[in-house]
Amino acid sequence: MCELLGMSANVPTDLCFSFTGLLQRGGGTGPHRDGWGVVFYEGKGIRAFRDSAPSVDSEIAALVSRFPMKSEIAISHIREANVGAVNLENTHPFVRELWGQNWTFAHNGQLADAAGLPLGEFVPVGTTDSEHVFCWLLAKIRDRFESPQRIDANRIAYWSQLKHWCDHLREMGVANLLFSEGRYLYAYCSTKLHWLTRKAPFGEARLSDADLAVDFGEHTTPNDIVTVIATNPLTANEQWQAMTPGELIVFDAGQIIFQAED
Amino acid sequence: MCELLGMSANVPTDLCFSFTGLLQRGGGTGPHRDGWGVVFYEGKGIRAFRDSAPSVDSEIAALVSRFPMKSEIAISHIREANVGAVNLENTHPFVRELWGQNWTFAHNGQLADAAGLPLGEFVPVGTTDSEHVFCWLLAKIRDRFESPQRIDANRIAYWSQLKHWCDHLREMGVANLLFSEGRYLYAYCSTKLHWLTRKAPFGEARLSDADLAVDFGEHTTPNDIVTVIATNPLTANEQWQAMTPGELIVFDAGQIIFQAED
Repeated sequence: MCELLGMSANVPTDLCFSFTGLLQRGGGTGPHRDGWGVVFYEGKGIRAFRDSAPSVDSEIAALVSRFPMKSEIAISHIREANVGAVNLENTHPFVRELWGQNWTFAHNGQLADAAGLPLGEFVPVGTTDSEHVFCWLLAKIRDRFESPQRIDANRIAYWSQLKHWCDHLREMGVANLLFSEGRYLYAYCSTKLHWLTRKAPFGEARLSDADLAVDFGEHTTPNDIVTVIATNPLTANEQWQAMTPGELIVFDAGQIIFQAED
Repeated sequence: MCELLGMSANVPTDLCFSFTGLLQRGGGTGPHRDGWGVVFYEGKGIRAFRDSAPSVDSEIAALVSRFPMKSEIAISHIREANVGAVNLENTHPFVRELWGQNWTFAHNGQLADAAGLPLGEFVPVGTTDSEHVFCWLLAKIRDRFESPQRIDANRIAYWSQLKHWCDHLREMGVANLLFSEGRYLYAYCSTKLHWLTRKAPFGEARLSDADLAVDFGEHTTPNDIVTVIATNPLTANEQWQAMTPGELIVFDAGQIIFQAED
């Protein structure tokens, strides 16, 4: 299995604190030694960092946890391989351009017969079930909705349809998902996913996996809203919300804009 | 204008020495302050690093120049913006997936009316003429050749056609190009591009832009072949070859496999 981490915020926010906790699980406090990756959105552009080495040993991961890259949406993943060799092309998150937007996708779980899902123009570079599913999903979105303008005019129908496609994946196995096109962050829970919104009044947060605490009151303004989504809670002293199987949440600038449960 | 750097090698080779020279020109010895990027191929996967900050000031660039990421193909670019704002989505190299391959593209020059080139399914994320041209070129390749298998069976026709498309761009302005699908490195000269092949017996190389010399004999085996392509020669004590306007060279594992001049 793997672990997921996502962030949606209403101001450019760095991921250093949460990422520091996550990367401990990549060969340190957790068994996810088979690579890691993170994508930060900055405007329409992205910065992607990935490595097939364990995140606890990775010099690139150390840079990411140290150097505050500010972003309103970020998606990260640490991998314990089940389908696909340990190499760079099998490392999440996966990225594709659709309609001039950078789409990013990370998956925790394993699916039976993902290779049977039909593909369109998007073709996997690597051999994971996860990238195959991403390519399938993008083709579905393009074929059904045709343009971002049409999505904007039919957002509820679009989000409901996304949940329907994610439900289809859940029927094939375990499909905890984080994905984004740079505007919204989508979190789908198949078995396990937690989220936490930090906003004023900010307090201290203490990592579960490393001896690190941050007083967010010192690093924020009263208007900041930052939501963090993770497979398992990253802090011990905050109240994380558990998502339910089959639940899709769409986050916009740190806040829930759409939520659908089974 | 901008500066390009590429590498094609028959063994995984790091780009630290050449990149150290290039990044000095990103706000140090050169005026290319508007961002930089580099893509390293590792198998079918890629590592991409980019920043809209000047490369001389970039902590990420410092990591790339210090940390030996070994690759058989790499493409880098430092930017002095002419078309498109200074931001991450306008930073070269650009990357797209076609046929399950990661295609990478970097451009030095400026084109009149690039926006008039028709696009297919590939849509620019940013606003540069360069990314528009890349999207146009990928659609041309896909429409004409349909699959990598068909390209493999018609390589000379494919490379000749690539030169023809590059010549078309050169008629619209300045189009010095480096691109790759992960197997070959393509270098097209519109006005200025130089290359240099290092092989046994290896000697010392001394950067023009920084006080740094390397004795490649200490870091190589006698079978290594490494070609570096750059807008301007990066070293003062080696014999760089100037490409001619309209020349396309295809490098395979550090060696020229196809070369066509006007």
